Amino acid sequence: VLHINITMIPGDGIGPEISAAVMKIFEAAKAPITWEERNVTAIKGPGGRWMIPPDAKESMDRSKIGLKGPLKTPIAAGHPSMNLLLRKTFDLYANVRPCVSIEGYKTPYTDVNLVTIRENTEGEYSGIEHMIVDGVVQSIKLITENASRRIAEYAFEYARNNKRTSVTAVHKANIMRMSDGLFLRKCREVAENYKDIKFTEMYLDTVCLNMVQDPTQFDVLVMPNLYGDILSDLCAGLIGGLGVTPSGNIGANGVAIFESVHGTAPDIAGMDLANPTALLLSAVMMLRHMGLHDHADKIQTACFDTIRDKKVLTKDLGGSAKCSEFTAEICRRVQDLG
Amino acid sequence: VLHINITMIPGDGIGPEISAAVMKIFEAAKAPITWEERNVTAIKGPGGRWMIPPDAKESMDRSKIGLKGPLKTPIAAGHPSMNLLLRKTFDLYANVRPCVSIEGYKTPYTDVNLVTIRENTEGEYSGIEHMIVDGVVQSIKLITENASRRIAEYAFEYARNNKRTSVTAVHKANIMRMSDGLFLRKCREVAENYKDIKFTEMYLDTVCLNMVQDPTQFDVLVMPNLYGDILSDLCAGLIGGLGVTPSGNIGANGVAIFESVHGTAPDIAGMDLANPTALLLSAVMMLRHMGLHDHADKIQTACFDTIRDKKVLTKDLGGSAKCSEFTAEICRRVQDLG
Ligand SMILES: CC(C)[C@H](C(=O)O)[C@@H](O)C(=O)O
Ligand SMILES: CC(C)[C@H](C(=O)O)[C@@H](O)C(=O)O
Repeated sequence: VLHINITMIPGDGIGPEISAAVMKIFEAAKAPITWEERNVTAIKGPGGRWMIPPDAKESMDRSKIGLKGPLKTPIAAGHPSMNLLLRKTFDLYANVRPCVSIEGYKTPYTDVNLVTIRENTEGEYSGIEHMIVDGVVQSIKLITENASRRIAEYAFEYARNNKRTSVTAVHKANIMRMSDGLFLRKCREVAENYKDIKFTEMYLDTVCLNMVQDPTQFDVLVMPNLYGDILSDLCAGLIGGLGVTPSGNIGANGVAIFESVHGTAPDIAGMDLANPTALLLSAVMMLRHMGLHDHADKIQTACFDTIRDKKVLTKDLGGSAKCSEFTAEICRRVQDLG
Repeated sequence: VLHINITMIPGDGIGPEISAAVMKIFEAAKAPITWEERNVTAIKGPGGRWMIPPDAKESMDRSKIGLKGPLKTPIAAGHPSMNLLLRKTFDLYANVRPCVSIEGYKTPYTDVNLVTIRENTEGEYSGIEHMIVDGVVQSIKLITENASRRIAEYAFEYARNNKRTSVTAVHKANIMRMSDGLFLRKCREVAENYKDIKFTEMYLDTVCLNMVQDPTQFDVLVMPNLYGDILSDLCAGLIGGLGVTPSGNIGANGVAIFESVHGTAPDIAGMDLANPTALLLSAVMMLRHMGLHDHADKIQTACFDTIRDKKVLTKDLGGSAKCSEFTAEICRRVQDLG
């Protein structure tokens, strides 16, 4: 079998443990993947600009696809978030987070089944800020026609390709009439080309309210950067938190980085206590992105069966198993699935 | 008894019905209030600036305190939201929304008991937007030291005066380092003067996630304008929605407007089907603001007892009573309370 190179960024804290777990499970599933492990610690390039290390960049440029554990946020002034730098470096314009209720993992909600699609490159994350006079600061939210059209198109394509029936544009165009107005206009225009998908628009505040009252009314949601940051975390909360929620950052021409979005959990790092589910489900998203649906199905089934079964669970999932035991259980089930 | 003049803005759609309900209940409670009813429809003043009608302005200037039903959002281009215009006209800098679980009204959550305090005058609501070039738009988020300090002080004072024990500042200073950074710095400074109140800071996305997982961990939350818009609606959703959630907009020197923040519900307007609870509980907030705690207690008890009893409820609360029947039931209980 031809093996495909994938860039693996294990990350900090519990990152190495959960990455090792994922690689073990992939091996059990005979996924045709060769991992290129790379560390990313920001370095200062020419002109003092922060950049990711050349060997990580070079690997990603070749493989086009990465899997990433949590990265600690540097505290040094002026130091960028590595997560943001990665999204920027590879122009990963769509942040995709499917939120699906997990059988056997109890939360106040059942039957959540939605996907947040977040514009990942501009908006409130433009990084442009000024002090006007002492005590008066402005931050600039930048919305462009191109990025808005691109993310709207991504959302509708996603809906169509994933047999989803509706797309909701989330905005505050009643307040930010020009910027969110532009975003909304592009969504409306793109919607015209997808008559098979129902299009609705809703204020962000209304979405939040409706979301906690009845999340089953939502399907695909598309929105500017900050709103996506908020809503994706809110939705993750509905199904059990960041420990079980996968995420993908998608760019053009197949370039993509899949990542767990939880923290580095330094308090339990190296203790074999971490839960690899979020990274594993992100890796499953990656397999689907690569068209390897059989491997994806097998691993996903093994993971969800393990959780539903409640016998071998990590502490955060309500059990007492070690990360390695949870991983071994998933491997066993993967192998049983053939 | 000396009667106090209060400006009553009944509003549009179901506004007149629910305002009438509140006035009836206040009468039953012998609240020492004389209502000055005023309509607010924006008019164009000198220089083409939108303003609220002089007789409404004049009444508010005298009474300092208003109670307001829902106002329909004008569709005319350039026409401001009347809600925003009122907040601006009277410099109502603090938007306060207590969210407390209502016994007998079932939601996925119990024991919610928190208050969102939203900066109400600047931030993303500054209204400053530009088109840079064709297809590129920027909106400006304005954060000032003064407004940040003022809202932080309000939040800590509120906590102290309402026997609450903690204040959480909600921000995205990891992204908007200068603007949210300034807001956060002011919160920290003010916190120094309130050693009796526990101070914590948390990212907005983290708050949303934690909120839907366990809202009981929160007490008083303070935040910039847009975050408050989002979080206050989210929290309202936790306890049953905007139909049961009160709101107050507070300015300096006792000036304040209390309002129900639900819509005008044109589909049921004039049909005696509306639920006056949100406006009634806002009016109860108003009574407390005026120091009329006995009247506030009586009305609040009558309202919550009626809901807990489940016998006379409007449709949205799960019953079949008319607005007038629900109102009469609350009046009866108010009178029973003496
Ligand atoms: C780590 C942080 C910069 C990031 C963000 O704010 O986008 C995170 O919250 C996320 O959602 O991926
Ligand atoms: C009516 C609208 C302008 C307003 C806002 O966005 O602030 C509303 O959502 C609110 O929360 O009071």
